[in-house]
Amino acid sequence: MKFIQLREEVCQANRELVKSGLIVMTWGNISGVDRKEGVMAIKPSGVDYEQLRPKDIVVVSLDGGQVVEGDLRASSDTPTHLVLYQGFESIGGIVHTHSNYASCWAQAEREIPCLGTTHADLFYGPVPVTRQMRPGEIKEKYEHNTGKIILERFSTDKLNPEHIPGVLVANHGPFAWGKSPKEALDNAIVLEQLARMALGTVQLNPEVGNIPQSLLDKHFQRKHGPEAYYGQEN
Amino acid sequence: MKFIQLREEVCQANRELVKSGLIVMTWGNISGVDRKEGVMAIKPSGVDYEQLRPKDIVVVSLDGGQVVEGDLRASSDTPTHLVLYQGFESIGGIVHTHSNYASCWAQAEREIPCLGTTHADLFYGPVPVTRQMRPGEIKEKYEHNTGKIILERFSTDKLNPEHIPGVLVANHGPFAWGKSPKEALDNAIVLEQLARMALGTVQLNPEVGNIPQSLLDKHFQRKHGPEAYYGQEN
Amino acid sequence: MKFIQLREEVCQANRELVKSGLIVMTWGNISGVDRKEGVMAIKPSGVDYEQLRPKDIVVVSLDGGQVVEGDLRASSDTPTHLVLYQGFESIGGIVHTHSNYASCWAQAEREIPCLGTTHADLFYGPVPVTRQMRPGEIKEKYEHNTGKIILERFSTDKLNPEHIPGVLVANHGPFAWGKSPKEALDNAIVLEQLARMALGTVQLNPEVGNIPQSLLDKHFQRKHGPEAYYGQEN
Amino acid sequence: MKFIQLREEVCQANRELVKSGLIVMTWGNISGVDRKEGVMAIKPSGVDYEQLRPKDIVVVSLDGGQVVEGDLRASSDTPTHLVLYQGFESIGGIVHTHSNYASCWAQAEREIPCLGTTHADLFYGPVPVTRQMRPGEIKEKYEHNTGKIILERFSTDKLNPEHIPGVLVANHGPFAWGKSPKEALDNAIVLEQLARMALGTVQLNPEVGNIPQSLLDKHFQRKHGPEAYYGQEN
Repeated sequence: MKFIQLREEVCQANRELVKSGLIVMTWGNISGVDRKEGVMAIKPSGVDYEQLRPKDIVVVSLDGGQVVEGDLRASSDTPTHLVLYQGFESIGGIVHTHSNYASCWAQAEREIPCLGTTHADLFYGPVPVTRQMRPGEIKEKYEHNTGKIILERFSTDKLNPEHIPGVLVANHGPFAWGKSPKEALDNAIVLEQLARMALGTVQLNPEVGNIPQSLLDKHFQRKHGPEAYYGQEN
Repeated sequence: MKFIQLREEVCQANRELVKSGLIVMTWGNISGVDRKEGVMAIKPSGVDYEQLRPKDIVVVSLDGGQVVEGDLRASSDTPTHLVLYQGFESIGGIVHTHSNYASCWAQAEREIPCLGTTHADLFYGPVPVTRQMRPGEIKEKYEHNTGKIILERFSTDKLNPEHIPGVLVANHGPFAWGKSPKEALDNAIVLEQLARMALGTVQLNPEVGNIPQSLLDKHFQRKHGPEAYYGQEN
Repeated sequence: MKFIQLREEVCQANRELVKSGLIVMTWGNISGVDRKEGVMAIKPSGVDYEQLRPKDIVVVSLDGGQVVEGDLRASSDTPTHLVLYQGFESIGGIVHTHSNYASCWAQAEREIPCLGTTHADLFYGPVPVTRQMRPGEIKEKYEHNTGKIILERFSTDKLNPEHIPGVLVANHGPFAWGKSPKEALDNAIVLEQLARMALGTVQLNPEVGNIPQSLLDKHFQRKHGPEAYYGQEN
Repeated sequence: MKFIQLREEVCQANRELVKSGLIVMTWGNISGVDRKEGVMAIKPSGVDYEQLRPKDIVVVSLDGGQVVEGDLRASSDTPTHLVLYQGFESIGGIVHTHSNYASCWAQAEREIPCLGTTHADLFYGPVPVTRQMRPGEIKEKYEHNTGKIILERFSTDKLNPEHIPGVLVANHGPFAWGKSPKEALDNAIVLEQLARMALGTVQLNPEVGNIPQSLLDKHFQRKHGPEAYYGQEN
């Protein structure tokens, strides 16, 4: 195995995914990328997380999706991951789940407003929701087109995927990403918690809106960018 | 014991049922069928799941419900299971629970609309809800008639139980089924999660409706039927 | 220790109470009664459940509440328990908790309607809620008067405590009872689940009402009374 | 290490914080104070709770926030804690979390009304919510000013921090406090449960208001003050 480190990293993140509580059945997958080698590693389709071993992880080429290493069939969501890595050049890991609260917002086709500092610490604005897919986009190259409407959503509003590390696909569920598979998983966990808090908040105050811009700026910049002062490393 | 394999399978599924989190107290039961031998095996009534052993499982005849093997009294819901096996000829296992969210929809007498791909992956349309039972149906042969109104619901709308592997009995709770007791349990777990997501979704968007037909077709056919491409086995 | 068996039984039920998930902090207590000896045993006030041993359980006289055995101070809710044992002559155990969903209904001052068979299996009608207490009743003999307004609520509507094994005290939380401390605990667990399901149900259908009388009769009588046929013992 | 006992106490409370279920990721911190020595000990910024050891705890001066002991960077919320210790002279420990339900109320900018005895046992009135912060307060000395608006909220309504041991910071989340780090943690746990119950209560009865003053007086005084009679120590 050439890509042993990448496969171990992706395997480990998928095993942590199931511990995170975001997953029911096998509804979720994590991938990682090696941009120098031009490959992506991803969970195989429909395999239990507990049984997952590095050798089960499937490595495919980043441009065409051909299998480079691995004996199992790659996740059916593989083409979506590929489109996202191609469109978002700085990301290194992607997580897709059907986590409960984020999926509620995706099914309701509502973006998650930025209602507090928990949200502002990670997302520099609302969590966007894509438009619905058109019948033609669904019928042919469905998973590929799922990635395309995510890119379209970010392009339309000139959103920066480093500042907005996740999205809700309408009628479907969330995707989250980060510099690595592990960071992508952390972001998926935070996204689910934001979605949970936001549901309770709009139930208590249906008129609530986004927090003031100054508070959003403060919290996001406290953790990200040149003036960050949160944690031990900045 | 002649039906040792069937009893072990049913015992195992009932023990997993309690681990699934769908059960409070002893409110739930799983059965399995051996159509060649014309028998059904089911959990005994009111027995703790942890104590359950294969020898406790009761085997009854599929046509008349006479006890064929077993010393305990069969689940009080036995006649419902028998009617379902008789009416739905392709199913091999049935699960009945009072799981929280599915029971909320059943008590509210609302079918669960198909609000997203999580739902569409398993149910080819809304999860139907039966009509209320009539006093005469309740007074005599209540459990038998519970099965009958389920069959009636499927017959009225020409629903295919292989495409809609579960139902909500009005004022009561869910039944789910599958090719085996284990698959029936998996379907019951998914049904509960669908019901949970759907509650959150309608709270966020009371006007939300079923997803477009093209998306429903895509997701259901991705996992079922001749063109399925999810998992390792298709 | 004379009442060693009663104290062990009450201690054991209190320890199971904390495992039931109904308890936050030390908000809850279970008592048991020995009517022949004219005594009640109850959890001491503010003691952690994990540390609880039979010798910590306080035994008091059923008529006046004088300590008969035990070195600790009895639960501050002791007078409420005493009034209930005096008024409901057939009960053998009482549980008081601030369990989340039952307390929501109590705080909302709404009775829990009988919305389904889960409810009907244990409660032969809605779970009643008391009236608010008057300032004079609060100021003097508050805990004693808490018991009194429960009895008043049952007396006003001629409710049978064997058919309605629990109540919501307005602005406060639930009390449940049964033939023994263990059965009272089981009933408290079911009451909490009924309250949880009922919240979800009224969110889905605010106009929902009690189930038909025939269904209530069927389910209650399936488990209780001379024609019961649920479980292995009837 | 001079302040070994204080650091152990604060370390232990932070480790229990993560077990309490109030925390997602590293969103939360606990501090303790030694008023005689004029120092505060607090969790370091962005460090996992499981890894936390007494030597990781940072000790800073109570007046200026200079590091007195410790090699790591103190929590970014340190200035908020300092302001609270300066303004609330009787408190000995502070907990800050983004716990789900309390944060929902904070994000909705609604105070938590006193809806029942669970609330009245700890808070002598509603849990207050601060006003939003002004752009200038956010831009400079943000964490310091977070403490200032809490003090302002208590000052405006002449609230006693011993009687109201917590607050909701608008658009942010809860702070709770107590005589010690451990008591502050207990109060944060209770605050979260109050917030959870209150959400369910207002969903069941949107018109519900504070409980009668006589009931509030009774429950608060049952546990606090010269006439307390709850627990073994009063």
